[in-house]
Amino acid sequence: MHTLLGLLIGPPLPTQRLASERLNKIRALAAFSPDALSSIAYANQEIFLGLAIAGAAGLAYSLPIGLAIVGILVAVAISYAQTLPAYPTGGGSYTVASANLGRRIGLLAASCLLIDYVLTAAVSLTAGVAAIASAFPALWPYRVTLSLAFLVLITLANLRGLREAGTLMAIPVYFFLGSYLAMLAVGVVKALLSSPGSFEATAPPATEPLTTWLVLHALAAGCTALTGIEAISNGVPAFRPPEAKNAVRTLAVMALLMGILFLGSIGLTQYFAVVAEPDETILSALVRHVLGTNVLYVIVQTATLLILVVAANTSFAGFPRLASLLAQDGYAPRQLSFLGDRLVFSNGMLLLAGLTGLLIVVFNGDTHALIPLFAVGVFLAFTLSQAGMVVHWVRTRGPAWGLKAAINGIGALATTITLGVVLISKFMAGAWVVVLLIPVLLLAFYTVKQHYQEVARQLTLRDAAPEVATPLRAPRVVLPISGVHRGVVEALRYARSISDRVTAVYVEVNPGDADRVRQQWEKWGQGVPLVVVPSPYRSIVGPLLEYLEQLDAESGDGQLASILLPEFVPARWWQHLLHNQTAWLLKLALLYRRRRFGKVRAIIDIPWYLRD
Amino acid sequence: MHTLLGLLIGPPLPTQRLASERLNKIRALAAFSPDALSSIAYANQEIFLGLAIAGAAGLAYSLPIGLAIVGILVAVAISYAQTLPAYPTGGGSYTVASANLGRRIGLLAASCLLIDYVLTAAVSLTAGVAAIASAFPALWPYRVTLSLAFLVLITLANLRGLREAGTLMAIPVYFFLGSYLAMLAVGVVKALLSSPGSFEATAPPATEPLTTWLVLHALAAGCTALTGIEAISNGVPAFRPPEAKNAVRTLAVMALLMGILFLGSIGLTQYFAVVAEPDETILSALVRHVLGTNVLYVIVQTATLLILVVAANTSFAGFPRLASLLAQDGYAPRQLSFLGDRLVFSNGMLLLAGLTGLLIVVFNGDTHALIPLFAVGVFLAFTLSQAGMVVHWVRTRGPAWGLKAAINGIGALATTITLGVVLISKFMAGAWVVVLLIPVLLLAFYTVKQHYQEVARQLTLRDAAPEVATPLRAPRVVLPISGVHRGVVEALRYARSISDRVTAVYVEVNPGDADRVRQQWEKWGQGVPLVVVPSPYRSIVGPLLEYLEQLDAESGDGQLASILLPEFVPARWWQHLLHNQTAWLLKLALLYRRRRFGKVRAIIDIPWYLRD
Repeated sequence: MHTLLGLLIGPPLPTQRLASERLNKIRALAAFSPDALSSIAYANQEIFLGLAIAGAAGLAYSLPIGLAIVGILVAVAISYAQTLPAYPTGGGSYTVASANLGRRIGLLAASCLLIDYVLTAAVSLTAGVAAIASAFPALWPYRVTLSLAFLVLITLANLRGLREAGTLMAIPVYFFLGSYLAMLAVGVVKALLSSPGSFEATAPPATEPLTTWLVLHALAAGCTALTGIEAISNGVPAFRPPEAKNAVRTLAVMALLMGILFLGSIGLTQYFAVVAEPDETILSALVRHVLGTNVLYVIVQTATLLILVVAANTSFAGFPRLASLLAQDGYAPRQLSFLGDRLVFSNGMLLLAGLTGLLIVVFNGDTHALIPLFAVGVFLAFTLSQAGMVVHWVRTRGPAWGLKAAINGIGALATTITLGVVLISKFMAGAWVVVLLIPVLLLAFYTVKQHYQEVARQLTLRDAAPEVATPLRAPRVVLPISGVHRGVVEALRYARSISDRVTAVYVEVNPGDADRVRQQWEKWGQGVPLVVVPSPYRSIVGPLLEYLEQLDAESGDGQLASILLPEFVPARWWQHLLHNQTAWLLKLALLYRRRRFGKVRAIIDIPWYLRD
Repeated sequence: MHTLLGLLIGPPLPTQRLASERLNKIRALAAFSPDALSSIAYANQEIFLGLAIAGAAGLAYSLPIGLAIVGILVAVAISYAQTLPAYPTGGGSYTVASANLGRRIGLLAASCLLIDYVLTAAVSLTAGVAAIASAFPALWPYRVTLSLAFLVLITLANLRGLREAGTLMAIPVYFFLGSYLAMLAVGVVKALLSSPGSFEATAPPATEPLTTWLVLHALAAGCTALTGIEAISNGVPAFRPPEAKNAVRTLAVMALLMGILFLGSIGLTQYFAVVAEPDETILSALVRHVLGTNVLYVIVQTATLLILVVAANTSFAGFPRLASLLAQDGYAPRQLSFLGDRLVFSNGMLLLAGLTGLLIVVFNGDTHALIPLFAVGVFLAFTLSQAGMVVHWVRTRGPAWGLKAAINGIGALATTITLGVVLISKFMAGAWVVVLLIPVLLLAFYTVKQHYQEVARQLTLRDAAPEVATPLRAPRVVLPISGVHRGVVEALRYARSISDRVTAVYVEVNPGDADRVRQQWEKWGQGVPLVVVPSPYRSIVGPLLEYLEQLDAESGDGQLASILLPEFVPARWWQHLLHNQTAWLLKLALLYRRRRFGKVRAIIDIPWYLRD
């Protein structure tokens, strides 16, 4: 088991290798862009589904919607380009909002981001499976299983560590870019050589009238094309020096590629008047139209699947890092901040994988059902980040601060409007889940923080008098026994080595059983007194607790008894079912039923190793 | 939580009440007969389903099959009547087969019985729900949920204890007997006043030809009418004295009632040529035919539901008792032999409830799908029990031993033939599951037995020299710390009170962190040395284990170190997620990774109670 895990995850890495685990620009683009680039897969699909219900008249709005979204893309990209140099140690929405808008708003951003990371992974995986299932319709019934299989795959890849993951992910990203850009080029040539198609001839009949509401709805769903653009801002420290400069260049290349892919595919779809069947994505229909149903088509669909699978990788870089920031600040369980053997935040990755798997199962692997939950968090986090940057420039007043503030202000305005549109048009379809989840997460953050603060207060030695460290008298030790055997003799030897105040206790469930035990104790009891406690109701735990309480009260030394529990350690896991139930119940009762029975000083576990 | 359970299950009962928890004959019939009496519900249904596929010609065989089954019933009942006085302390198949045919055959019988108890509960509950769903078709979609709800109900009733359960169960049993016998009487009067119906007019068209195979198949399925007749033999000690005599009388009454109910309903069904629709049981169709679709019909269906629900009670009496016998003999985990607070074998009941619930869910609440698994175990256990009795009489040679042996021999022959028929005709439909399960259970029995024997061998003091009890030197105590706080100071005080050889260990994950800890240790370390262990791979557990191993090796005193682990005990359950992960991992590693790192002498748990 241990060896298998070692093989899958790799040997541990020493801490000093942390600095060398950095990415060059080629690898960084591969590590941070898949989410952004692959968004077209589901964004185009949502625009198509949103407009097709209004028939040909609706589909005519594809290109205008595409242009509007690219406008927002430009505003957001420029806005983020200003963030990177200002926050070179990692300027995610959490950091920027915390620093400039206060802790509360920062946590609000953090809750949005955590939700979005999970949704990115779930949406990308299901959309990737939809891409390949469009090419091989026999795969449709296995969408959930396939999505989960890919999830396991990238989880393992990420548990191995960032650089290895970077290498593994680079190939599919460039494979996708190459094949997809080539497809678009072929499409453009074909478009130049042929006359435009007409949706009048191809579109399904309208089932709803074309309204402004319907167009806004499609626009809101299409805005998911922008998801992932913020990934770089969270990951500046992963770049090779000069980190910020390299990050900005990578961001610019990424935004340019996003625009080309998105507008290219939307434009060609509209020019050729391509429509999709129910069990096919619109991108698949476009590729099929441009290249024909042949091996080239299958290559492009495979590339789409692969980049969507690695898109989920963005979450595996971001979620654990953000969770560890929250944990370091005391807002999340501490173990999320532990760097694992492989220099990655393994606990955060496992948490992300678990939540993503849950979403895939609950939503039955259906991208379209997940989308309404997606955009709210994304655009709220965008808005908070840009607004934080405005405050940043106004505060710091560096060179050209007015211009910079204005640019981020425009970004904030664009994303705020988008957020409003998304919120209104997708609320009933699922956005309400996120609106509900955000305050729940905030409550959890504050509850955890309060608990850790309270514990620190209870544990502090700052104002403690030196008397808290005065020596104790040797403890009174109580050894509950169920009979007399080698394990008990061994435990008794230990008890006598730590104290001369030892008592053995036997709880007598069947009247008369104690006689035999008393007899054997004569021989093996090493002079220690044996107390027999009757148990008319056959419970072991209750009478023992009552005896302890009485003993503590009678002793009058102000001390609490130490309980010695011999524990069998079996050689095989299933043998656990055959041992130790009473010891476990007793230990649980000693630790947690303190309201009734007072505390214990110590529980001493004497392992008795069973040979096989 | 604790109070709610107390309310549902009742206060604990003292052991001396065990003798008074006995049943008079009226209550005993109610406690042990429901399974036997209610078997007609599914047996008739199976005969109908088995014959109806051959149309009218097939259904004509109902009565002959019914007569054949009653013949087997008489043989089995007389056979068991001889068992009760011979084994007054409880003569289940396990006891009889073990005593006369050897331990192996006894365990074979036990595995059959355990399987059958679970199937009785599952089949009875689903058939009961089918009875009421026949009257209220709207309930069909909720069959699984309803079956599980009734399962929870009887589990709680049984956890309260036998006599209470007996009272609760008596009402529905006599309600069923009264209403069903009245219905049969009305039916007989109606039959006398009218001419017989004809299956030619009512039966659905045949889909298969009438063959001997088909008739045998229906006979095999109908033999499930005999299930439950053995219940009394397992429960003789629950009767009031004279136990055996009272038990025999109760058995006779029960067998008579079984015959009347079974032949009466089969006879009337054939006389009136009643057939059932797909979503109705044949008994429901018969009652509807005799009484009309009115409140009387609903009353009889409700009574059928109720007796089937309490039929599952037979399992709750038998399964835990048999499991406790096996556990006392060392063939099952010991906790199955613990009498609970309410004088019942609570662990066995919970195990039975869990397995029954699993069967209901897996078979989607469908009685017809469960039946093929049912009869194999029943008739194998019958056969082993009768065969054991034959050997018993031949061995003991009491008065009229030849006659008695012959009677049991006839019983054994009848059930062996039935077993063969059932096995052949139902093998593919599901009996193979049981054929596979029986050896698996046998293997489990022997594995458990072997383990307990091996443990006893390792623990025995029989040949131990008195030197095993010589005194030990005070232990070397190692206290791993993650910082310096009140909890650590308290743990250190305890450590010094039990030994003067104490060492504190700090595992340094981030280089440089140890300086601050060393500084604070100066003030609060009570003169105990502090060792800092570097951890270049950030693991806490590994370096600590290696340090311990090295310490044990260097000390040269032949002792193993005792590890002191401070443990936070939070006031609320969710706070566990925020604490103690490292301590738990360390403890698990100390106990179970012994191959690499050797054993420990003791793990001392110092609870630190967090205030809310």
